[in-house]
Amino acid sequence: MKISVLGTGQVGRTLAGGLAALGHEVAVGTRDPDATLARTEPDAQGTPPYSRWQDDHPGVRLLALADAGAHAELLVNATSGTASVDALAAAGVGERDGLVVLDVANPLVFSGDGLSLSVANTDSLAETLQRAFPTARVVKSLNTVNNAVMVDPARVPGEHVMFVAGDHAAAKEAVTGLLDELGWAGRVLDLGGVRAARGMEMYVVLWWHAARAVGTFDVNVALARA
Amino acid sequence: MKISVLGTGQVGRTLAGGLAALGHEVAVGTRDPDATLARTEPDAQGTPPYSRWQDDHPGVRLLALADAGAHAELLVNATSGTASVDALAAAGVGERDGLVVLDVANPLVFSGDGLSLSVANTDSLAETLQRAFPTARVVKSLNTVNNAVMVDPARVPGEHVMFVAGDHAAAKEAVTGLLDELGWAGRVLDLGGVRAARGMEMYVVLWWHAARAVGTFDVNVALARA
Repeated sequence: MKISVLGTGQVGRTLAGGLAALGHEVAVGTRDPDATLARTEPDAQGTPPYSRWQDDHPGVRLLALADAGAHAELLVNATSGTASVDALAAAGVGERDGLVVLDVANPLVFSGDGLSLSVANTDSLAETLQRAFPTARVVKSLNTVNNAVMVDPARVPGEHVMFVAGDHAAAKEAVTGLLDELGWAGRVLDLGGVRAARGMEMYVVLWWHAARAVGTFDVNVALARA
Repeated sequence: MKISVLGTGQVGRTLAGGLAALGHEVAVGTRDPDATLARTEPDAQGTPPYSRWQDDHPGVRLLALADAGAHAELLVNATSGTASVDALAAAGVGERDGLVVLDVANPLVFSGDGLSLSVANTDSLAETLQRAFPTARVVKSLNTVNNAVMVDPARVPGEHVMFVAGDHAAAKEAVTGLLDELGWAGRVLDLGGVRAARGMEMYVVLWWHAARAVGTFDVNVALARA
């Protein structure tokens, strides 16, 4: 499948690399590819410059957002939550009818006193995207785990699960197929419509606290059930 | 221990019964005991009248809030989230120095289109209570599971966990002791200060969606970790 991943941070890179390794034709989309490739220093979060990752992944093309959007049969939103609407607009998602958008982003806001969300409770990032791009088919998934776990669920032992939410059944099937390829087969739980993304995004605050408490981000939810 | 449980709904009853069965001297606090006992019909949620439960639990006294507060060596808040500050104030929590308040309530708001929280993201019910009653020692716990699971974690198979959060280490130890008695020994994860209650309360939205998806509320989080 032709897949474009919007976002050149650690999440975008890991997903692009993981999907390319499965044989998909993957492009990464960014606002200004030349500027992205010109950086030689780690960013403020300590992420190494993209050019180094690019050298290790010559099969993944880095494209401007509009070109990445045109390439995509399926589009992955791995931009920061507060930039996502603008990035998808620049990728032309508004002009694409029925494009599946896998939204893995979280609307995280880190401030001096901890973590909060830029949208929560009565709305979610996934719903914001679905409203902004009504002809797209937004599916929320993968946002509940660390990027390394997204493409390698076996990092975490046990019967842990991956949630999906979205209003379009066929789009959820397409995403579930990708999840299965990434190693999530038999672990996917459909929570229903895109509104359930509220729970998936708000959970990330608990996940963050729990990961700190246990000392690793290789942590996920298993649903113990009677 | 002398324990008062504020709230006569299903959560309050189940916790009062479970704690009394362990040998604690349990009272249930309500605004108007005579009115509570006079009801003979199920409430709007289908909960049977309190008098029937009282008949089955003659050792648990039903007291007015002020009397319940005076009885308490440890107080459990099982009122609805939007009523909790008023209930604790009426129980005299503001005049008690160092009283441990185990807050199991969730600030749930059910409307026609689903579930949301009356406080979230940048605040939580537990933090609201700790601010309103600065001499109390608020510990958030048990809010992440259904009432039946609170007092009988073995209903759910697997290595699932119970979180605690609060600013006072000794209060968390007291609560963890009660949790151990209820069956949670070895399963308690301390998330840190009371601010972590934000994650525990927001998670309930995911829990609610997940319980509907799997078809039972006997569901809890296990933390699969590397």
